[in-house]
Amino acid sequence: MNYILNSIPSRTQKPRNSGFTMAMDKGLSLREVEDFIEANGDYVDIVKLGWATSYVTTKLKEKIDIYRAAGIPVYFGGTLFEAFIIRDQFEDYRRLLDKYQLSFVEVSDGSITLDHDTKCEYIQTLAKDVTVLSEVGSKDAAKIIPPYKWIDQMQKELSAGAWKVIGEAREGGTVGLFRDSGEVRQGLVEEILTQVPEERIIWEAPQKEQQVWFIKLLGTNVNLGNIAPNEIIPLETLRLGLRGDTFDFFLNK
Amino acid sequence: MNYILNSIPSRTQKPRNSGFTMAMDKGLSLREVEDFIEANGDYVDIVKLGWATSYVTTKLKEKIDIYRAAGIPVYFGGTLFEAFIIRDQFEDYRRLLDKYQLSFVEVSDGSITLDHDTKCEYIQTLAKDVTVLSEVGSKDAAKIIPPYKWIDQMQKELSAGAWKVIGEAREGGTVGLFRDSGEVRQGLVEEILTQVPEERIIWEAPQKEQQVWFIKLLGTNVNLGNIAPNEIIPLETLRLGLRGDTFDFFLNK
Amino acid sequence: MNYILNSIPSRTQKPRNSGFTMAMDKGLSLREVEDFIEANGDYVDIVKLGWATSYVTTKLKEKIDIYRAAGIPVYFGGTLFEAFIIRDQFEDYRRLLDKYQLSFVEVSDGSITLDHDTKCEYIQTLAKDVTVLSEVGSKDAAKIIPPYKWIDQMQKELSAGAWKVIGEAREGGTVGLFRDSGEVRQGLVEEILTQVPEERIIWEAPQKEQQVWFIKLLGTNVNLGNIAPNEIIPLETLRLGLRGDTFDFFLNK
Repeated sequence: MNYILNSIPSRTQKPRNSGFTMAMDKGLSLREVEDFIEANGDYVDIVKLGWATSYVTTKLKEKIDIYRAAGIPVYFGGTLFEAFIIRDQFEDYRRLLDKYQLSFVEVSDGSITLDHDTKCEYIQTLAKDVTVLSEVGSKDAAKIIPPYKWIDQMQKELSAGAWKVIGEAREGGTVGLFRDSGEVRQGLVEEILTQVPEERIIWEAPQKEQQVWFIKLLGTNVNLGNIAPNEIIPLETLRLGLRGDTFDFFLNK
Repeated sequence: MNYILNSIPSRTQKPRNSGFTMAMDKGLSLREVEDFIEANGDYVDIVKLGWATSYVTTKLKEKIDIYRAAGIPVYFGGTLFEAFIIRDQFEDYRRLLDKYQLSFVEVSDGSITLDHDTKCEYIQTLAKDVTVLSEVGSKDAAKIIPPYKWIDQMQKELSAGAWKVIGEAREGGTVGLFRDSGEVRQGLVEEILTQVPEERIIWEAPQKEQQVWFIKLLGTNVNLGNIAPNEIIPLETLRLGLRGDTFDFFLNK
Repeated sequence: MNYILNSIPSRTQKPRNSGFTMAMDKGLSLREVEDFIEANGDYVDIVKLGWATSYVTTKLKEKIDIYRAAGIPVYFGGTLFEAFIIRDQFEDYRRLLDKYQLSFVEVSDGSITLDHDTKCEYIQTLAKDVTVLSEVGSKDAAKIIPPYKWIDQMQKELSAGAWKVIGEAREGGTVGLFRDSGEVRQGLVEEILTQVPEERIIWEAPQKEQQVWFIKLLGTNVNLGNIAPNEIIPLETLRLGLRGDTFDFFLNK
């Protein structure tokens, strides 16, 4: 830190198991990746190449290499996994992970219908080679999954070998954990937390109000994801009670 | 593409007549232009220097040169044309196009009242030297132009020599083709398409929901404009059915 | 300017006392700062390192040096002042300003409760060494300060030695001068202007509609703040009547 302020909440350091921040890269150029790392590298634990953007990324290998050299693992968005599955190209997907030497993979079913046992088999198979993040929640606003099902799926996916489970939100901050307005489905989150250990969950929370809500519920070192590159520093200040929205919250502790 | 996925919709390649993407630069620095081209160059057919931003752009000639060297033509936003017209400086505007060796020009009347015959004369005059994009639709939310008038104006402007006509939207995604909420005026678009060939129209659609709507109506290779620099890659994935919003749509085809 | 347009409103030049633009940097990398300056330097009078982002900024000294070398002073957001005050670390804050050789400081009470006389004493003390910007308005949407109090506080803060007073808005454009919708509290602004000289006020106005509103009320050379880096060029065109939103306004003058 650049100067000393008393009574700042204690923040985990890299490599983090909790207090994890997952950033979303949806099309940065190589130099933009370098800039992103310079300014934010200490605060970013993993980068998702959003959905299937990697398909049209101009210098994909170089991009992944820059992140890797900075100690930041990269993984492909779950939609890419689904794009391979729906086309019956699972083995191609495994070869793709090999080709780019990726050590993380996301398994999700936000855009496809996947029997849950089958999903767990994919997790089990992939977990032999790489670290699996599995995602629960649909991208379809009409598909409301009740809390008991979220819990059941999360537990089974962790048992199948997922390192952590991700609570779904779109890049824009709707569906899954959130209502169309972006508001958190509070009851859902609270019920999940009665059954699934907090450190095993990454909450996708792209909007500031969502981040604030999770920090107030779970503290400085909550795991958050889908953070836009230019919101990493702002999020870090929220975690530390150094922005108006959480300023009071940590002082009163 | 970086890997093979089966059954991906067929995308036109540069130089494109359809499937055209127009990006809006509203103030990028030279290095940001280089980065933009590196990451997005294959997917950008033309760049608009938004409205009259070119007036205050620090290194305008250098910027235009960088785009040109990458094979991406640049044109000034229609508001600049209007700023010259309202000041009775049309000849100055022509000299300006010459000075920067621009091969495209936009003729519009979004902020001024222009007799339609006069507008067509400007199109005709300019079309002798450069490629004309003409724009239909007002920036004034109170001026609702009925569909038959949109059609009449588009047809006359194409007859006068416009290469393509542009359906107006603000940078933020309102007015013209859209309601204040950003929602598409669907009936308007459908009626236009009964009379004007699809490939002669560029739809300004800065918001994701608007892009999705046009892709679902007109397919992968619809012409879209006013795309923000960091939304080019996301748009490309929408066109290919590789993002949640259009994932199902192309699979069911 | 890159070309001549007749009847463009007259814009003040640097160093500006009115027509002042304050930009907010909430986490740019060093190269992004260089790019920002190249494209926008002529139009930016001062840069705020938003709230307490400086605490987690990776290369803070280098960043401040780059701005300084370009003739653009930098100051820490008021929330940082408050973070030091609430911890009873005022002397540490003064040493911090010294360490980074900052010539501007913000004194605010948006997130803390500060007796107004005490606030004025801080202003007086700091004004001996640096130029003070003091901010009026709460970040708490529930704390509605009535106009007479805004005026009283602004006058006292100017008397205590503040160079200019800032009318508060969040980065997102709510609270303080604005309603939750982002709409300007018009009566408040108009009443303030009956008692406080316009050139002594900087209005935080991050949203385009807010900028347009102030430009229409106070003209080209109104002092505006909290402008995002990529909105500096767009704001400059608004000031000059070269964007749709203010195009008519200046023509009819």
